[in-house]
Amino acid sequence: MYEGAIQDLIDELGRLPGVGPKSAQRIAFHILSAEQADVTRLATALRRVKEQVRFCRICFNVAEADECRICRDARRTDEVLCVVEEPKDVVAIERTGEFRGRYHVLGGAINPLEGVGPDNLRIRELMTRLSGGAVKELILATDPNTEGEATATYLALLVKPMGIAVTRLASGLPVGGDLEYADEITLGRAFEGRRALDV
Amino acid sequence: MYEGAIQDLIDELGRLPGVGPKSAQRIAFHILSAEQADVTRLATALRRVKEQVRFCRICFNVAEADECRICRDARRTDEVLCVVEEPKDVVAIERTGEFRGRYHVLGGAINPLEGVGPDNLRIRELMTRLSGGAVKELILATDPNTEGEATATYLALLVKPMGIAVTRLASGLPVGGDLEYADEITLGRAFEGRRALDV
Repeated sequence: MYEGAIQDLIDELGRLPGVGPKSAQRIAFHILSAEQADVTRLATALRRVKEQVRFCRICFNVAEADECRICRDARRTDEVLCVVEEPKDVVAIERTGEFRGRYHVLGGAINPLEGVGPDNLRIRELMTRLSGGAVKELILATDPNTEGEATATYLALLVKPMGIAVTRLASGLPVGGDLEYADEITLGRAFEGRRALDV
Repeated sequence: MYEGAIQDLIDELGRLPGVGPKSAQRIAFHILSAEQADVTRLATALRRVKEQVRFCRICFNVAEADECRICRDARRTDEVLCVVEEPKDVVAIERTGEFRGRYHVLGGAINPLEGVGPDNLRIRELMTRLSGGAVKELILATDPNTEGEATATYLALLVKPMGIAVTRLASGLPVGGDLEYADEITLGRAFEGRRALDV
């Protein structure tokens, strides 16, 4: 609908996840009237991500060096290893400040419908790390959905013979939420996982 | 929260209109795993918009040449001029296929709260075009909100003494909508603008 360059940009932006035609148009006109320096910074950031970002050779988190910041941190314990699906899960857990162990990023979850099997994830690399003998507890922090649960079960069966404690993050009611708005599966899990109150 | 380049990209994306922190993160990881060629195309499209897109010297629509495609089109009539706020309004009207005249893009609407007065819009340029004498009807197609209405009223008062017919797009119920879901102002306008049914 537009001439040349602006339509090209709208088309390219529309290919990004979560950016519909209206947002693409809005962003394109924002770019058109933005400062040259801001646009250059964005274009450079796009290029640099492809050039500079690698995956940590130990945990497969995003990293700018061979090893990520967390794997390089000598103050963290090697005894607890937390398995997550994606780098953004590492960020979410780090934000809680509750965990001082190491991570292992699978790069997804088992999803036969989308053709993702165990061989497409960093499971072999996980087994190699575990065979080192340092890990005492393996926390399975894959997503609490069908694919995440399947992946957790698969890993638990695989790791069990190694004598490492395997745990899964608790499912239950979100803190600050309303019981009446919880879906029945979450509420069922919350019942199942009820704890004695020490008062 | 992330290291270096990926965080830089998330920050830059988060500055775009309508892109929140979660979307920025999602897009950044999409970029990270996208084909190099796709990322290059996006970065190039960003740069090219700033380099190549200009504003038509007649109507101030976006253009790649001195004059936009619509102003260059000899088959359109010069007798009807449609005033809109933004280039995207031109696209919306073109999509209807109902209009064969010319456009004038103001570059916004009068909005005293945001410091946009008549001098910040292409109103002087509009008056120069109108003084040429070719225009018989001026259609005010600014947005049907407070700023758009104020701008239309301001322009109507300005143009009235020139003896040019001034019209405004009809307000009323959206076609395909439900009467019960219309807000009271729209419904009020629809009553006000009711027409005799010729059956």
